[in-house]
Amino acid sequence: MTSMTCLDDFESYAKKHLPKYAFDYYSSGANLEQTVKDNVAAYRRLRLYPELLRDVSKRDLSTTILGQKVDIPIAIAPTAMQSMAHPYGEVATAKAAASLKTGMVLSSWSTCSIEEVAEAAPDCLRWFQLYVYKDRDLTERLVRRAEKAGYKALFLTVDTPQLGRRYADVKNNFSLPPPLKLANFEQASQTDVVGSSDSGLAEYVASQVDQTLSWDDVTWLKGITSLPIVLKGILTEEDTREAVAHGVAGIVVSNHGGRQLDGVLATIDALPEVVKAAAGSGVEVYLDGGIRLGTDVLKAIALGARAVFIGRPVLWGLSYKGEEGVKEVLEMLKNEFNLALALSGCTSPENVPRELVRRQPQHSSNL
Amino acid sequence: MTSMTCLDDFESYAKKHLPKYAFDYYSSGANLEQTVKDNVAAYRRLRLYPELLRDVSKRDLSTTILGQKVDIPIAIAPTAMQSMAHPYGEVATAKAAASLKTGMVLSSWSTCSIEEVAEAAPDCLRWFQLYVYKDRDLTERLVRRAEKAGYKALFLTVDTPQLGRRYADVKNNFSLPPPLKLANFEQASQTDVVGSSDSGLAEYVASQVDQTLSWDDVTWLKGITSLPIVLKGILTEEDTREAVAHGVAGIVVSNHGGRQLDGVLATIDALPEVVKAAAGSGVEVYLDGGIRLGTDVLKAIALGARAVFIGRPVLWGLSYKGEEGVKEVLEMLKNEFNLALALSGCTSPENVPRELVRRQPQHSSNL
Amino acid sequence: MTSMTCLDDFESYAKKHLPKYAFDYYSSGANLEQTVKDNVAAYRRLRLYPELLRDVSKRDLSTTILGQKVDIPIAIAPTAMQSMAHPYGEVATAKAAASLKTGMVLSSWSTCSIEEVAEAAPDCLRWFQLYVYKDRDLTERLVRRAEKAGYKALFLTVDTPQLGRRYADVKNNFSLPPPLKLANFEQASQTDVVGSSDSGLAEYVASQVDQTLSWDDVTWLKGITSLPIVLKGILTEEDTREAVAHGVAGIVVSNHGGRQLDGVLATIDALPEVVKAAAGSGVEVYLDGGIRLGTDVLKAIALGARAVFIGRPVLWGLSYKGEEGVKEVLEMLKNEFNLALALSGCTSPENVPRELVRRQPQHSSNL
Amino acid sequence: MTSMTCLDDFESYAKKHLPKYAFDYYSSGANLEQTVKDNVAAYRRLRLYPELLRDVSKRDLSTTILGQKVDIPIAIAPTAMQSMAHPYGEVATAKAAASLKTGMVLSSWSTCSIEEVAEAAPDCLRWFQLYVYKDRDLTERLVRRAEKAGYKALFLTVDTPQLGRRYADVKNNFSLPPPLKLANFEQASQTDVVGSSDSGLAEYVASQVDQTLSWDDVTWLKGITSLPIVLKGILTEEDTREAVAHGVAGIVVSNHGGRQLDGVLATIDALPEVVKAAAGSGVEVYLDGGIRLGTDVLKAIALGARAVFIGRPVLWGLSYKGEEGVKEVLEMLKNEFNLALALSGCTSPENVPRELVRRQPQHSSNL
Ligand SMILES: Cc1cc2nc3c(=O)[nH]c(=O)nc-3n(C[C@H](O)[C@H](O)[C@H](O)COP(=O)(O)O)c2cc1C
Ligand SMILES: Cc1cc2nc3c(=O)[nH]c(=O)nc-3n(C[C@H](O)[C@H](O)[C@H](O)COP(=O)(O)O)c2cc1C
Ligand SMILES: Cc1cc2nc3c(=O)[nH]c(=O)nc-3n(C[C@H](O)[C@H](O)[C@H](O)COP(=O)(O)O)c2cc1C
Ligand SMILES: Cc1cc2nc3c(=O)[nH]c(=O)nc-3n(C[C@H](O)[C@H](O)[C@H](O)COP(=O)(O)O)c2cc1C
Repeated sequence: MTSMTCLDDFESYAKKHLPKYAFDYYSSGANLEQTVKDNVAAYRRLRLYPELLRDVSKRDLSTTILGQKVDIPIAIAPTAMQSMAHPYGEVATAKAAASLKTGMVLSSWSTCSIEEVAEAAPDCLRWFQLYVYKDRDLTERLVRRAEKAGYKALFLTVDTPQLGRRYADVKNNFSLPPPLKLANFEQASQTDVVGSSDSGLAEYVASQVDQTLSWDDVTWLKGITSLPIVLKGILTEEDTREAVAHGVAGIVVSNHGGRQLDGVLATIDALPEVVKAAAGSGVEVYLDGGIRLGTDVLKAIALGARAVFIGRPVLWGLSYKGEEGVKEVLEMLKNEFNLALALSGCTSPENVPRELVRRQPQHSSNL
Repeated sequence: MTSMTCLDDFESYAKKHLPKYAFDYYSSGANLEQTVKDNVAAYRRLRLYPELLRDVSKRDLSTTILGQKVDIPIAIAPTAMQSMAHPYGEVATAKAAASLKTGMVLSSWSTCSIEEVAEAAPDCLRWFQLYVYKDRDLTERLVRRAEKAGYKALFLTVDTPQLGRRYADVKNNFSLPPPLKLANFEQASQTDVVGSSDSGLAEYVASQVDQTLSWDDVTWLKGITSLPIVLKGILTEEDTREAVAHGVAGIVVSNHGGRQLDGVLATIDALPEVVKAAAGSGVEVYLDGGIRLGTDVLKAIALGARAVFIGRPVLWGLSYKGEEGVKEVLEMLKNEFNLALALSGCTSPENVPRELVRRQPQHSSNL
Repeated sequence: MTSMTCLDDFESYAKKHLPKYAFDYYSSGANLEQTVKDNVAAYRRLRLYPELLRDVSKRDLSTTILGQKVDIPIAIAPTAMQSMAHPYGEVATAKAAASLKTGMVLSSWSTCSIEEVAEAAPDCLRWFQLYVYKDRDLTERLVRRAEKAGYKALFLTVDTPQLGRRYADVKNNFSLPPPLKLANFEQASQTDVVGSSDSGLAEYVASQVDQTLSWDDVTWLKGITSLPIVLKGILTEEDTREAVAHGVAGIVVSNHGGRQLDGVLATIDALPEVVKAAAGSGVEVYLDGGIRLGTDVLKAIALGARAVFIGRPVLWGLSYKGEEGVKEVLEMLKNEFNLALALSGCTSPENVPRELVRRQPQHSSNL
Repeated sequence: MTSMTCLDDFESYAKKHLPKYAFDYYSSGANLEQTVKDNVAAYRRLRLYPELLRDVSKRDLSTTILGQKVDIPIAIAPTAMQSMAHPYGEVATAKAAASLKTGMVLSSWSTCSIEEVAEAAPDCLRWFQLYVYKDRDLTERLVRRAEKAGYKALFLTVDTPQLGRRYADVKNNFSLPPPLKLANFEQASQTDVVGSSDSGLAEYVASQVDQTLSWDDVTWLKGITSLPIVLKGILTEEDTREAVAHGVAGIVVSNHGGRQLDGVLATIDALPEVVKAAAGSGVEVYLDGGIRLGTDVLKAIALGARAVFIGRPVLWGLSYKGEEGVKEVLEMLKNEFNLALALSGCTSPENVPRELVRRQPQHSSNL
């Protein structure tokens, strides 16, 4: 078992052991990092109202995501360039997810390729996160490769027409350090990531990613693949209604971990509105952002999330001990969630009541 | 008289003089200790609106608890393993309670046994706090012993199907130091408390305490004893209605001093809802958690508590001067409450008006 | 002119130059000093909405208090034992008030007697603050002496059946240092002030002051004097209605500078409710507590105070330069208020509109 | 390109490199600087709710101000005495504004004259900020000179019948250091600025500026010029209605950067009320105060501002590199605003929806 006491201990470890440019890239958010901080702080503003004297001796943490069973309602969010944290990068992550019997979203910008991850972790429930490139042929090739390699859904990231301005990366003039590379792309398309001035990644996005991306392209994407489509980055009722109307399979309430538009509300604050707008549609609603404790998972589920995804904690686990470290992170969160369930009088994600969580009018945000 | 100025001075003393593992065990709470802090902070968010120009020359602080007279509406909550603070442990506490003419709840996990405490402090109004064990015979034997030794009620703790995760205890790999032992149990049943990894106490609870405990067991308990039953740990309107329906004699609004589910609301914030739900039922409502000042007692009484219980301050008193220290703690709180009554225009717990306390909409919680 | 920039500079000076026991006695409040701090902080939570483009070239700061003209709506609250701050004590204060053409309330516990102050500052508009003693003859003698010496009203303090618990005074075992004495009393009646344990003053109050004081005694007091009676310490609508019914001439919304019941609301927060309840009755409403800036005066007047009284700043002025220091304090506050009036589009206390001040729902108190 | 990462970096530079009296004069605000801080903090309390999946590939940041095209909805507020920051002062600022194709308001108290600025930056869209002097002939001469030199509007500052009390300037006994002078005035009229005691500028204002200024004078000013008139300093619905009734062309929601009446609400908090009151009148509403980030501009525009003006950041840019520094400041803000637009799903100031910004009831102000 781990010598870590809580997820934050993994972050402290990473801060101490990773090269500064890597820790900065992983931890930072846009501008003042208000949203980064509020993603976490928003959970602290919610109060729990447990039900007591319920038999909690038999608990079942499992749920399904798009019809696939997962042992815990906690999966892994797509984060780019995981090999900066550990040589085995996304492969290690996928193996850890597999051993906890949960799923992982692979980033378009992974440092292990779509195929490498699939081969190394064939049993891992895998999904592919898609950025739509100006070059639509290239985009379509990514989709085909994900389909072929057994990824079960496409997570279309909708909050990144350009990259958010992250001061730390600007100051570090951040770019992917050789010999690492964006493993899903030909050399030709990624020269800019090696940087010039500013953040190299920001320039790469500006030159490659399609800023015209709109609801019509969701229709286009549905037309070229039979994989279910999950929109990652939805925050409002209006956009949820659009998503439902466009026939997507799922929504991730996400603000990209506070890395895109600073000042955007915390995801747990956005969740109830999205859940309400999606109710009855069959579209599954997930959440990512700021999950650091078992009670955070519990609160998200009480407010209507089917499952949650974690981003940075996985990177801290990777930097600690690779595959083993990610497993420890997942296990710790699983155990904490399991305990939180019991202490709330619940026995499974399904029977967590909405009433478990309240936000008093007098609770104020520091955002 | 004491050289201490306020209850917090006793805590400072304890922090300086107790072994770290003991101070940590006593003071800590679950996870981030949000609820530990909010239990105290919530009193600071309530404003007093005194009535002036009332004759306050004659004051009577006494009340009754389950029909028994106490000189002050302040009694002692059950806290485990008091002999880590002072060799005489629960015996010293009981004697101090007796000399202030108030009552004490003895923990199931006391380091002086049910019988030792009864013999040493026969005049002390004593109640017994019950954990229900998987082994129901063992549980029933505890009840019989409490009955026989003259304890006046059973406080059934309902918030502990498992032990909360307290980082300090995990880090200290806490277990009861020899030669101390859980005095109410045979040696056999407590091997785990001597610990392995993690917190030894947490493992003990996981292996021994009955996680199936439910409302039906309240009925079962009523069936095997004629002692009045008080549920300790109720926080919501729903559970209060259940408690009333199950014919209990009293309720302690409690979150176990923030040691079980972190993020649970402060007890003083939970009180009004419980009081309202219990109104007219004859079920007495008490409160524990975060009481540190005379005005805290006053606020709890204004919001409907019949009496309050204090946990940690008693441990600090014990560590300071044993029985004498606990007496000083109780006297200080009594004097402060007495003064607060006078300055509010009240002369007894009975005539503290609900209107004395208001929470403005603009008052925000830091939870 | 002064080398001080703001009132807080006078406090810093006093903190540096007064003996610790004296600074502590002057500055401290009850228990955690929540109310001391909130009295000041509450002004910071109020926002100003100035009216612009009004001719503010001619301004008149004067008003009347109980029919007597004062050049500024700022007078001096009663504070005990001023000679600890400067040898001339209350005499110096009265002279300063006179030169600013405003009034002063003399404390029952002054270190210069009723007659000394009257002789030294005959032109000063003076009122007398009354504590009602168990010994009613003694009390009546105080009233007669005040009448005879030309004091224009009695300020009956209603919030002090006992003295609040001020930790600093308890720790200092505070008592009036010889050769100073409570100048309005025979030696006999003040032995306790020289202290024993705890705060000497607290023991004095407990033994001497009448804890039976009630609304009936207001009637009694009206019966023995023709001076107008002002109740000092009213905070609620209910008590304001009582005050009106008992025919008093004025009310000071006050919490004794946070020195009595800690946790009581800030006076500026209590003001609107009292003003509303007194409206149309002819009873004048004043306020004291936490006034430190010209805009604080402006806010109190906008919310309905006819005038404000200042306590501690006068003591800081005294400790700085005696009479001259008090004058500087009053002049600074006058100038700041004068400027605040102009910048708000107002020309006199009378035409400060209620709408100048708003508290948004989202403004939270730190109490 | 700049080595600065955000606007605050320019302030840090200025703090390090400017003489203290100059940095203090530029940065300070009235009294406790509550409003200075709240102008900035208020933006942090607003949350963004972006619309996603909109084609944002083609963006147009331009708008018009009083019918004149500007490339960005960000212009330069009038700030006095810019030559303390850089020898070329207002001339440098005007040239920078011209190269970004935006406008600049020249202060009455500029250190380069009306004519100098016009000659040096003929292409710069220039407006003139007017203080009305007791000497109305002098005032009228200023108007004539502005008209003649091609300034396109008069910004009448309405919040300065006297100068706010800025402690730093009082302590520094601030006055304009020789050989600098208020370039728009004859030597005779500015002797006081060279100071005596207190702040020299405050005394200058008291002796020269017309405290009788009222709504009638707006009518007077309209009568003597054909330039459009913009009222700078309006904060309430009432005054907005007056402004509309008096036929002004525009309003700047402003509190003078928190330099006049401390405790006045933040400008972004005042904006919605003013926008509502001006709706349909044809009067353009702008805002200044606390703009430090691209998202601040975005929020102001979402809440109804046609354009925003920046004060202090321009002074920091000047102190950094004169004209070049101001350009860098404007470019950085332009780029940030451009990115914020894209990430919010908008393509121009015109299509920023009101719904982009919400303030939850639980968001509290620290004012
Ligand atoms: C270092 C890092 C890289 C990320 N890369 C991607 C990415 O390539 N694609 C994507 O859709 N989201 C990306 N995200 C956002 C995550 O999927 C997720 O929304 C976020 O990390 C959740 O917040 P958390 O880190 O607080 O758990 C990244 C986040 C981080 C921290
Ligand atoms: C060290 C410690 C041990 C405790 N042990 C028990 C226990 O054995 N049984 C129980 O029902 N509650 C137990 N409690 C909870 C207390 O009864 C009570 O709810 C809590 O301490 C009240 O909060 P306070 O400490 O802020 O006064 C314990 C609390 C502490 C601090
Ligand atoms: C040192 C000190 C002594 C005081 N003594 C008296 C007193 O003798 N009688 C009384 O009615 N109020 C007394 N007060 C309360 C003041 O009259 C007044 O209510 C309070 O000081 C106002 O708050 P401020 O100090 O923030 O201005 C005293 C206050 C202080 C600080
Ligand atoms: C140093 C300084 C000088 C100023 N001088 C003037 C002035 O002469 N006339 C005027 O109308 N406003 C003046 N202002 C106010 C600005 O026009 C503007 O309202 C304010 O600076 C906006 O806030 P910001 O600095 O936070 O952007 C001045 C502000 C500063 C900081």
